[in-house]
Amino acid sequence: MAKRAKAASDSLASLGEKGLLPLLTGTWKTDKDVVLVGVGDDAAVLRGEGKNHFLILKTDAVIESVHFTAQASPGLIGRKALTRALSDLAAMGALPLAAVITLGVPANESVRRLRAIYAGLEATAQRYAVNLVGGETTRAKQLFLNVALLGECRGYAPVLRSGARPGDLIYVTGRLGGSQAKRHLTFEPRLAEGRWLARNEMATALMDLSDGLGADLPRLAEASGVGFLVDPAALPKSRGVTAQAAMNEGEDYELLFTIKSSNAKSFKKKWPFTTPVHCIGVVERRGRQSRRAPLAHGFDHFKQR
Amino acid sequence: MAKRAKAASDSLASLGEKGLLPLLTGTWKTDKDVVLVGVGDDAAVLRGEGKNHFLILKTDAVIESVHFTAQASPGLIGRKALTRALSDLAAMGALPLAAVITLGVPANESVRRLRAIYAGLEATAQRYAVNLVGGETTRAKQLFLNVALLGECRGYAPVLRSGARPGDLIYVTGRLGGSQAKRHLTFEPRLAEGRWLARNEMATALMDLSDGLGADLPRLAEASGVGFLVDPAALPKSRGVTAQAAMNEGEDYELLFTIKSSNAKSFKKKWPFTTPVHCIGVVERRGRQSRRAPLAHGFDHFKQR
Repeated sequence: MAKRAKAASDSLASLGEKGLLPLLTGTWKTDKDVVLVGVGDDAAVLRGEGKNHFLILKTDAVIESVHFTAQASPGLIGRKALTRALSDLAAMGALPLAAVITLGVPANESVRRLRAIYAGLEATAQRYAVNLVGGETTRAKQLFLNVALLGECRGYAPVLRSGARPGDLIYVTGRLGGSQAKRHLTFEPRLAEGRWLARNEMATALMDLSDGLGADLPRLAEASGVGFLVDPAALPKSRGVTAQAAMNEGEDYELLFTIKSSNAKSFKKKWPFTTPVHCIGVVERRGRQSRRAPLAHGFDHFKQR
Repeated sequence: MAKRAKAASDSLASLGEKGLLPLLTGTWKTDKDVVLVGVGDDAAVLRGEGKNHFLILKTDAVIESVHFTAQASPGLIGRKALTRALSDLAAMGALPLAAVITLGVPANESVRRLRAIYAGLEATAQRYAVNLVGGETTRAKQLFLNVALLGECRGYAPVLRSGARPGDLIYVTGRLGGSQAKRHLTFEPRLAEGRWLARNEMATALMDLSDGLGADLPRLAEASGVGFLVDPAALPKSRGVTAQAAMNEGEDYELLFTIKSSNAKSFKKKWPFTTPVHCIGVVERRGRQSRRAPLAHGFDHFKQR
């Protein structure tokens, strides 16, 4: 009780953003007839019609001087606003249906720049077959775009973070690291790959890499109640990137997933994409004694049991 | 062409926020198999399963020093973030299902205040049976909450802004004006009233009043391709509020709707709510010569043909 009161008086700076969300959302309760997955996965899952239909809901924002600089190409700002949210739908194996956009805009903003941002947004929506169906604008001190996305899984189930089991193999798409310098505005959300993994019941667990493998893999492991062991030599690094950067830099927007070892051969054979895919490690049991141990982010010993 | 280039170079300040949205979203195209109503109504309408099932999608943000002051009760900030979006679902006649929240938060924000805001949000979600299913946080200069809501109409059709026909009678719920001083944080979204109007096929057109009757009724008329005539004496004013304020102040979050005159008697008889409802005018034909005339916002001559 005293501990809780203390936490409540802490400033955000000392708490950290990652500590904030559980504090704000930890008491949320949902109607099990409507909601299958709430806070904690890449996106929420609601029951659709019948057994094999699921609605997927996601919200995400990009903010000037946080997610892009004032100098960034306006078209790419619009692109990133949508592709970040699309990457989360990819991480469920979902097909995107429609997006609604909130624009927060400073009074002195250039209309020409806003139109260029929206041109990028619209081109990206067309590219990934997303319907833009709602747009709100509001005054704000700092330019931001919030994208809320509705998607679905029809005829198959979404893949959650929580399905990894000891013995499963761990994979990533693409190459890791160097995104903040080169790709954070132009990455491809792995929508087709994510849907394929879900529809073919290949992946036992699936998420996208937004904060870096070193932060995100422990989240998948935590959700699944497992440990893991990563082989440093197997990490697919972007050109000119150190192993540390590949592990911790973030903004990769690649898929991280696990596959039953008995399916590994068939998976590699059937993978129909040119997108590279690499096995980087194995899921292990989580030992009772290390369950509450701090997560190991260091590269040399990137394992957690 | 020259005109377009000029518009693009205009600053937001000279264009106005209301002029901005069509400029940004006017070129959006949607897939008719998925989207029934896109930008332009209170919320978007997507096809659900079968003939009489519709999904309703809405996004909306509240921002510090725009939609609430730094001194506002934190719980009521959380409440308003959700009730504003709920009012838009009410304006479609929809049942809310689930909400996802984006929190933009300054680094020096108090965690205690954030928890109080979220306590208000959660209590409001429980009150209106909305599932909170997703929460993202991001750094921002200014505190904001974006709420994206998914709702549905099951077994009946949503009511759009575009269905008003000459001869229909115009109604509002509640009383108008004085909200900014008294009710803008604590208003009741008219969810039950909106659903009743839709399910019973009573309303021919429906929207919520956010910018004031003087701004919103012309929008309904524009969407329906009609004119209107409002009787100043019939306006239900909040206590101590001038007719001008009742017309133009905004943030009423009451419902504005039209009903066939042949249904008016049955409507008044069947209306099952204690919420007051008043007939304030009549829908008229829109004359060809005045179609492009500036909208008349003045109280003495609040008509448009």
